Amino acid sequence: MDYRKNMIYLFEPKSVALIGATDKPGKVGRAIAENLLKFPGKVYFVNIKCQNGQELLGKPCYKTIKDVPEDVDLAVIAVPAKVVPSVVKECVEKGVKAIIIISAGFKETGPEGAKLEEEILKIVEGTGVAVLGPNCLGVYVPKTSLDTIFNPPDRQDKPKHGGIAFISQSGAFGAAFMDRMADLGIGLSKFISYGNAMQIDESDLIEFLNEDPDTKVIAAYIEGVKDGRKFARVLEKLRKPLVVFKAGITQAGAKAASSHTGSLAGAAEIYKGVFHQYNVVDVFDMQELLDASVALERQPPMRGENVAIVTNGGGAGVMTSDYVVLHGMKLAELSEETKRRLKESLPPAASVNNPVDVLGDAPVERYEKAIEEVIKDEDVDAIIVIALMQSPALDFERFYEMIVRKAKEANDKGKPMVLILPGGRVPKEYVKKFVDAGIPAYITPLQAVKALRALKIRGERSS
Amino acid sequence: MDYRKNMIYLFEPKSVALIGATDKPGKVGRAIAENLLKFPGKVYFVNIKCQNGQELLGKPCYKTIKDVPEDVDLAVIAVPAKVVPSVVKECVEKGVKAIIIISAGFKETGPEGAKLEEEILKIVEGTGVAVLGPNCLGVYVPKTSLDTIFNPPDRQDKPKHGGIAFISQSGAFGAAFMDRMADLGIGLSKFISYGNAMQIDESDLIEFLNEDPDTKVIAAYIEGVKDGRKFARVLEKLRKPLVVFKAGITQAGAKAASSHTGSLAGAAEIYKGVFHQYNVVDVFDMQELLDASVALERQPPMRGENVAIVTNGGGAGVMTSDYVVLHGMKLAELSEETKRRLKESLPPAASVNNPVDVLGDAPVERYEKAIEEVIKDEDVDAIIVIALMQSPALDFERFYEMIVRKAKEANDKGKPMVLILPGGRVPKEYVKKFVDAGIPAYITPLQAVKALRALKIRGERSS
Repeated sequence: MDYRKNMIYLFEPKSVALIGATDKPGKVGRAIAENLLKFPGKVYFVNIKCQNGQELLGKPCYKTIKDVPEDVDLAVIAVPAKVVPSVVKECVEKGVKAIIIISAGFKETGPEGAKLEEEILKIVEGTGVAVLGPNCLGVYVPKTSLDTIFNPPDRQDKPKHGGIAFISQSGAFGAAFMDRMADLGIGLSKFISYGNAMQIDESDLIEFLNEDPDTKVIAAYIEGVKDGRKFARVLEKLRKPLVVFKAGITQAGAKAASSHTGSLAGAAEIYKGVFHQYNVVDVFDMQELLDASVALERQPPMRGENVAIVTNGGGAGVMTSDYVVLHGMKLAELSEETKRRLKESLPPAASVNNPVDVLGDAPVERYEKAIEEVIKDEDVDAIIVIALMQSPALDFERFYEMIVRKAKEANDKGKPMVLILPGGRVPKEYVKKFVDAGIPAYITPLQAVKALRALKIRGERSS
Repeated sequence: MDYRKNMIYLFEPKSVALIGATDKPGKVGRAIAENLLKFPGKVYFVNIKCQNGQELLGKPCYKTIKDVPEDVDLAVIAVPAKVVPSVVKECVEKGVKAIIIISAGFKETGPEGAKLEEEILKIVEGTGVAVLGPNCLGVYVPKTSLDTIFNPPDRQDKPKHGGIAFISQSGAFGAAFMDRMADLGIGLSKFISYGNAMQIDESDLIEFLNEDPDTKVIAAYIEGVKDGRKFARVLEKLRKPLVVFKAGITQAGAKAASSHTGSLAGAAEIYKGVFHQYNVVDVFDMQELLDASVALERQPPMRGENVAIVTNGGGAGVMTSDYVVLHGMKLAELSEETKRRLKESLPPAASVNNPVDVLGDAPVERYEKAIEEVIKDEDVDAIIVIALMQSPALDFERFYEMIVRKAKEANDKGKPMVLILPGGRVPKEYVKKFVDAGIPAYITPLQAVKALRALKIRGERSS
C-alpha cells in the first residue's frame, strides 16, 4: 500500500498518541503534550515510565503504544533517536496510519544517524504507514487544532485558519514564518515542517496539498529537492498556485545548506528553469513568500501585462511605475476614451495619464471614479491603488467599502487589484482589514508590485 | 548675502509667524497653527481678516506680518498662490530670515504658476532670505518642536528625536516615511519636504545637513536633481553618510516623475555613476532607505568584504549566506585557530564553519562564545547574528545584554554588527529594543544584508 494514501492522518486523525509524553516542564514531550490537550479528538500519552492507565496531565498514559486500548491513527514520536526504530516498530504493529518523528539525531548528525533512518524505512516499507520527519517540528493545522510545534506559546504565535499551506524544510524558519503570519493576521491551512524527509518529501506534500480542499495556495521553503524527476512530475499535475523560496542558490549558500539539511542545493539554473516551465512563482525573500501567497489566495491571475495605477501621491506613483517595468510588466496606455472621461471627472491639476494622480486632497468619490474608468479600459489587465493615508482628505471607512466594491468589479472582469498603503500605525491596521476582505494590501510599493508579479506568473499558465 | 546662511532659521527660529493662520477646522492654516502652539519660541498668527492684537487660538493675531510688533525669524506661508508674492514682499520688508511656502499652485500646475515662482525669486534675490518650497509640507524638527506638517495627528505619527535627517521631494511620500519611522521607533533629526525647490534645493539641504550637529546620516528621496554640477560639488565635500532613493529610473517612472515634480528624472546611468563615485548609498525601496539609514547611524563602516554569520537556525543561515554573496560581500573563511576554538566550546552537532550554527537549543552562553571567536578572527570584517526567537532555549533579556556588550567589542575593533530576528510579535519588540541600543536589527535576513551593504559602501570611502 502506498504511504501517500495515509498522509491525511497527519492532519486529520481521529486519535493521536504522543510517545515520549511527560509532565516535566521545559521538555519537548511536555510542550507537545500541552498542545495536544487542545486537540478535540482522542489523545493518548505514552511513556515507558508510565503505569498503564496512570494519568498524565489529565489524560490516560500507557507504557507503550500497544497498551493503548483503542485504535490510534497518528503517532507523534519524541523519544531519543536510538529508540525510535523500536518505537516505530510498535506503532506499525499497533496499526497506526501515520507517524511524525519529531526527534533529532538522524541523518543530519552523520552516518550513524543515517543508519537509523534506513532501519526505520525498512520497518515501515510496504506497510503503508506515512512517516513525516525525523528532525522536524511536525504539523500545525488550525482547523483541526492539531499542533505538534513545541515552541513555547509566549514566544511562538500561530496563525488562524486560512487558505495558505506552508511547507518548510527548515523547522526554525517555518516557525518564524508562522509567527510572522500570525502577527500580520494571515490565515494558514496547514503548516508542515518535514525535516529530513526520510519518507515523505516536498513532492509528496505538494501533491497532497494540491488535492487538499482547505488549501488554495502552496508556499514552500526548500533548500534542496530530494528527487528531481518526482518533483517535476508533481509540478506537471499541479493545479494550485505554488510559491517557492529556494535558498542555497549561491556557492556559499549551497555549502551552508549542505551542512544544514544535507541538501544538494546547487544547480540554481536548473531550478530556475523548472520553476519557469511549470509557472511556479519563485521568490527569494521571506516577506515576498508571504506577500505573493496572500495575493495568489485572494486575487485572480493577471492575464496580460498592462497595469493601471491610481494614486493620491505622485512620488509613490513614480516608484511604483519603476517597479512595474522592472518586474516584467508595463504601464497600460489608457485609451483616449478613458482619458477623456477621467478629465471630465477629475480636477484640472490631476494627471489622467497612467499613473492616474487623483491628488493629495482626493476624497473617496474622486478615487472611485478614477478606479471605475481604469477597470473599464480594455487594455488594463490589473489595477494598483495607492493611498497615502496620512493626508486629511480621505474618509477611511468609506474608502474601505468603495475599494471592496471596486475590487469585486475588477475581479468580475478577470482583473486583479492590489493596494499600497505606505506608512505606519494607521496603514498597518488597514492592510490587515483589506487582506481580511480579500484584497491584498501592502505597506511598500515594492512589496505590492512583487506580489502582482506572482499573479502575472500565474496568469501565464495556459491551463 | 547668501540665502544658505539663513537656512538655520528654517529649523531653529526664535520666532515664527504663520501667515494664513485660521481657526476654521479642516483648513491647512488651522492644522499648522495647532502644530505651532507646541513650539516653545514666540509664535505670531497672521491673517488679513484679523484685527491687530485680536486673539486666535490663544495667540495674538495680526493683519499682516509687518504689524507684528517684534522681530520674526521664520515666516510660514499658507495662503492662496496668487497672493504669495505680495506676502513674501512683506516678509522681506519685515526682515524675516527664512520663509516656508506651503501653498501649492506654482510650477507644478503650469506656466502661470511658474511665473509666480519667478516673481517671488526676484523679490528675495540678494536679500539673503532663505525660501523652502513652494508646494511642500515644510519641516518637522523634533528637537525644537517646530512642525509645519499639516496632516492630522490621528493619521500622521511623527518620529522622536534621533540622528537621521530625511529630505523628500515628495511631501506625501515623506509624510508616509515619517509615519513608518515613528511606528518602528526610529529617531529623526530633521524632516524637510522641499517641494518645487524654487530656491533651496536638495544640494543646499545636503550641504546644510552635512554641517548640522544633530544629523549623523542623511536620507533622501529624490526624483530629479535640479543642478547636476552643484550636486556633484556638494557630494565631493560630503563627510556624512548619504542614502538616496532615486525614483524615476525607468522610462515609465521618469515620465511619471515629469508630470509629478517636473523633474528630468531620466539618465539613470549618470546618477548611478555619480552615486558610485562619491560613495552615496543608492537604494531603491522605502524600507531599504530606512534600514540602511538605521545601520549607518548606529554602526561603523565595514572595512573589507568578509562577513561572519552566527545563527541558531540553519535555514536562516543558508539564505543569509546567499544574500551576502549576492550583495557584493563574501562569507569569511574562518581561521583554523577560530574553528579549533569553536569546536572546543560548541556541541559536536554545531557547525564551526561559516555560517556558525550554534543550533536551535543554543543558550546565551553558547552564542556568546561563538560571537567572541568570530569577532577575534582577523579575516572577519562584519558580524551578522541571527536569532530565531520562537525556540525555547534563549533567555531574551540576557541575550539582549550579551549582544549589546559584544557589539561594542566588535565596534571597538572597527567591525560592524547587525542582527536578524525573524518572526512576529516578540522579534518586533526586540528589533526596537536593539535599535534603541545602537544595534541595527531587522525582521528579515534580506533587510539586514542590504543594510550591511550600506556599511560596506560607506567603508569603501578612502577618507
